[in-house]
Amino acid sequence: MSTPIEFYFDFSSPYGYFMSEKIDAVGEQHGRDVQWRPFLLGAVFKETGGQPLTAVPMKAEYADKDLARTGRFLGLPFQIPSAFPVSSAKAARAFYWLEGQNAVLARNFAKKVFKAYFVEDQDISQVEVLQACAEPLGVNGDELAEAIVTDDVKAVLKNVCAEAIERKVFGSPFVIIDGEPFWGVDRLPQIEVWLAKGGF
Amino acid sequence: MSTPIEFYFDFSSPYGYFMSEKIDAVGEQHGRDVQWRPFLLGAVFKETGGQPLTAVPMKAEYADKDLARTGRFLGLPFQIPSAFPVSSAKAARAFYWLEGQNAVLARNFAKKVFKAYFVEDQDISQVEVLQACAEPLGVNGDELAEAIVTDDVKAVLKNVCAEAIERKVFGSPFVIIDGEPFWGVDRLPQIEVWLAKGGF
Repeated sequence: MSTPIEFYFDFSSPYGYFMSEKIDAVGEQHGRDVQWRPFLLGAVFKETGGQPLTAVPMKAEYADKDLARTGRFLGLPFQIPSAFPVSSAKAARAFYWLEGQNAVLARNFAKKVFKAYFVEDQDISQVEVLQACAEPLGVNGDELAEAIVTDDVKAVLKNVCAEAIERKVFGSPFVIIDGEPFWGVDRLPQIEVWLAKGGF
Repeated sequence: MSTPIEFYFDFSSPYGYFMSEKIDAVGEQHGRDVQWRPFLLGAVFKETGGQPLTAVPMKAEYADKDLARTGRFLGLPFQIPSAFPVSSAKAARAFYWLEGQNAVLARNFAKKVFKAYFVEDQDISQVEVLQACAEPLGVNGDELAEAIVTDDVKAVLKNVCAEAIERKVFGSPFVIIDGEPFWGVDRLPQIEVWLAKGGF
């Protein structure tokens, strides 16, 4: 097993959701583990002057169309949530709290959060929604609610965001393979060739 | 022959160059003519607040890597020009002046301009470079130099830019097929499916 694929994403990023549904299978096909790294795009935008898609004239309208079409192209259920974008800080903190216990559990939770937001139109900034994602996985919802407001868990996410800025992860999804950066779900074809050939 | 594919691009856009090397073959495969529409991205950026890639922190460095990689991925010769970006107004005006005479001639000129800039590292903001692109096609270089400073030719380009803004063409390359907008050379796989199925 070679170096893991690093997968940075924001839980409120629709293109991040699309990538989350594809990257594990791509990794498996090429004998690579995938390390999921939720972070806060807002923290990076403060450095880069970046803006959410919905804030850019013309682009916002295009994004609506492109997202719906990309979902169909990739064969994934998708709708733009009623509340969009929302804060994904609590979801990301819950992820890292769970990862401290069990990496597979954390990833299963992440998948449920993405589906809750982009398929079932639930507001993932709400603790109750995160609890409803975690409880079917055997997680105690009260413990989750307590954990995500502790300084320790907050610090983990802060460090990941600082690391993302340090590593110039300026968008979501952002995949790093052996140091090579790939921004956007539309780089999947390049990622597949890269993994197959060990670079090109 | 159905409605033409509309292909908007800026001559100083590297992703526009990549698309210019692919879109005609894709159109031909699906029985569609392609209408080439050079415009000035700078005119649109005034409306959207958009910025050239090189002006955005973190993104600029990524773009260098992504452009080189995308060139290799698509099998196209490419280098980032020494002077980048440059004004493409004269190149675009020369295109429309030639198009007024012969659409095929204009397209052949456009291909030479793209190659001069992104393969041979020539500064396409210089009239001499444009003349050197046009002369092997049987165009009189002196006439070209005179034409591109006339009010008539300037007005054609101004109108195309206004039309691009009106139609929300906010980036390069930007392809419109039967009213459906596709931004970026990375949308080629979606374009191909769209053309094959008549939408999806």
